[in-house]
Amino acid sequence: MSGRFISLEGGEGAGKSTQARRLAEALRARGLEVVVTREPGGSEGAEAIRALLLHGAQTRWSTHSEALLFAAARADHVEKTISPAIGSGAWVICDRYLDSSRAYQGLAGGIDDAAILALHGFGSRGLLPDRTFVLEVPVEQGRARAESRDGVAADRFAARGDAFHADVAAAFRRFAANEPERFRLVDASADPDSVTEALLAGLADLLP
Amino acid sequence: MSGRFISLEGGEGAGKSTQARRLAEALRARGLEVVVTREPGGSEGAEAIRALLLHGAQTRWSTHSEALLFAAARADHVEKTISPAIGSGAWVICDRYLDSSRAYQGLAGGIDDAAILALHGFGSRGLLPDRTFVLEVPVEQGRARAESRDGVAADRFAARGDAFHADVAAAFRRFAANEPERFRLVDASADPDSVTEALLAGLADLLP
Repeated sequence: MSGRFISLEGGEGAGKSTQARRLAEALRARGLEVVVTREPGGSEGAEAIRALLLHGAQTRWSTHSEALLFAAARADHVEKTISPAIGSGAWVICDRYLDSSRAYQGLAGGIDDAAILALHGFGSRGLLPDRTFVLEVPVEQGRARAESRDGVAADRFAARGDAFHADVAAAFRRFAANEPERFRLVDASADPDSVTEALLAGLADLLP
Repeated sequence: MSGRFISLEGGEGAGKSTQARRLAEALRARGLEVVVTREPGGSEGAEAIRALLLHGAQTRWSTHSEALLFAAARADHVEKTISPAIGSGAWVICDRYLDSSRAYQGLAGGIDDAAILALHGFGSRGLLPDRTFVLEVPVEQGRARAESRDGVAADRFAARGDAFHADVAAAFRRFAANEPERFRLVDASADPDSVTEALLAGLADLLP
């Protein structure tokens, strides 16, 4: 039996990593094999590219170099981690995937959505998740969570400004409206148990 | 006055680095400002990507990840080194450029020429050299030169086999036939002075 591929998207402080772990536990409790991974990274080569992307000055890479590096990292991640796991029957839960590139590089870098999708088609044969959850929290709540986590996340969050975070949220909502089969919007401002329940409910049609 | 952009292509052991230096000296002797650079690399970010590409096992990267990494490195190299130098009026001599990706990744990786050109269009706005010289030597002479240089080059050369090197040479000749304005084939089996003279003769229409 082939596995399934689930991605969690949303702004910083939306609780994606926490919910990835919680959803994995819930699926394992149902007897499924689960692989939790994240982007950028998730394979040896992709983690090396992640280090290039996250170190150094913010201006280190042009937006086009950055888009190519993200696509290269994703190609490696898909080939070495995601596709083999799905092929072996596991459920893969990925903390950020293609739609983060579309939202962040599209908005912050001004890169056409079609160009990002073309790079994804080239690098990763256009592999899309079976389901993508957008975890939505009000901007203030995301900021508070990012601040309580660590100084780096808080700095990065604050540096962008509330208008940017609102634009990111709007971009994810737009992607969801265009692909209603793949996407589910989830109110992630609720308590963690309720959010995990909402994710499970959003997988009802895929669960065995 | 805007500068010019010259690339040197050819198999390993064709004498590209030597001729890049010699051509730079000859152009400087004519009063031109010259920047010599090479790929992969040629800028801080591109050199970091070069280290990712050249270290580790040969199977570290899939051909598609590799093509994206080369395109990312080239985008950075063009943005940070090549374009600013041309803009300031310098002549840029580049040891390998786009056509090496087309030859090596096209042949060894089986990647469509159109796909490599599309990545180049995205990352580097399709910047092409004003002139590209293909330095041609018989396969045996290339091997002998690579062996006399260092163990790594000799190993890499030997690992590929003569048929592969013949295919690379044929690919460069095909590119040249399709773009006769940009390309010049140069017999690089002659003594270094004669080769440099041939390069200068091939720039006659561009020299001030």
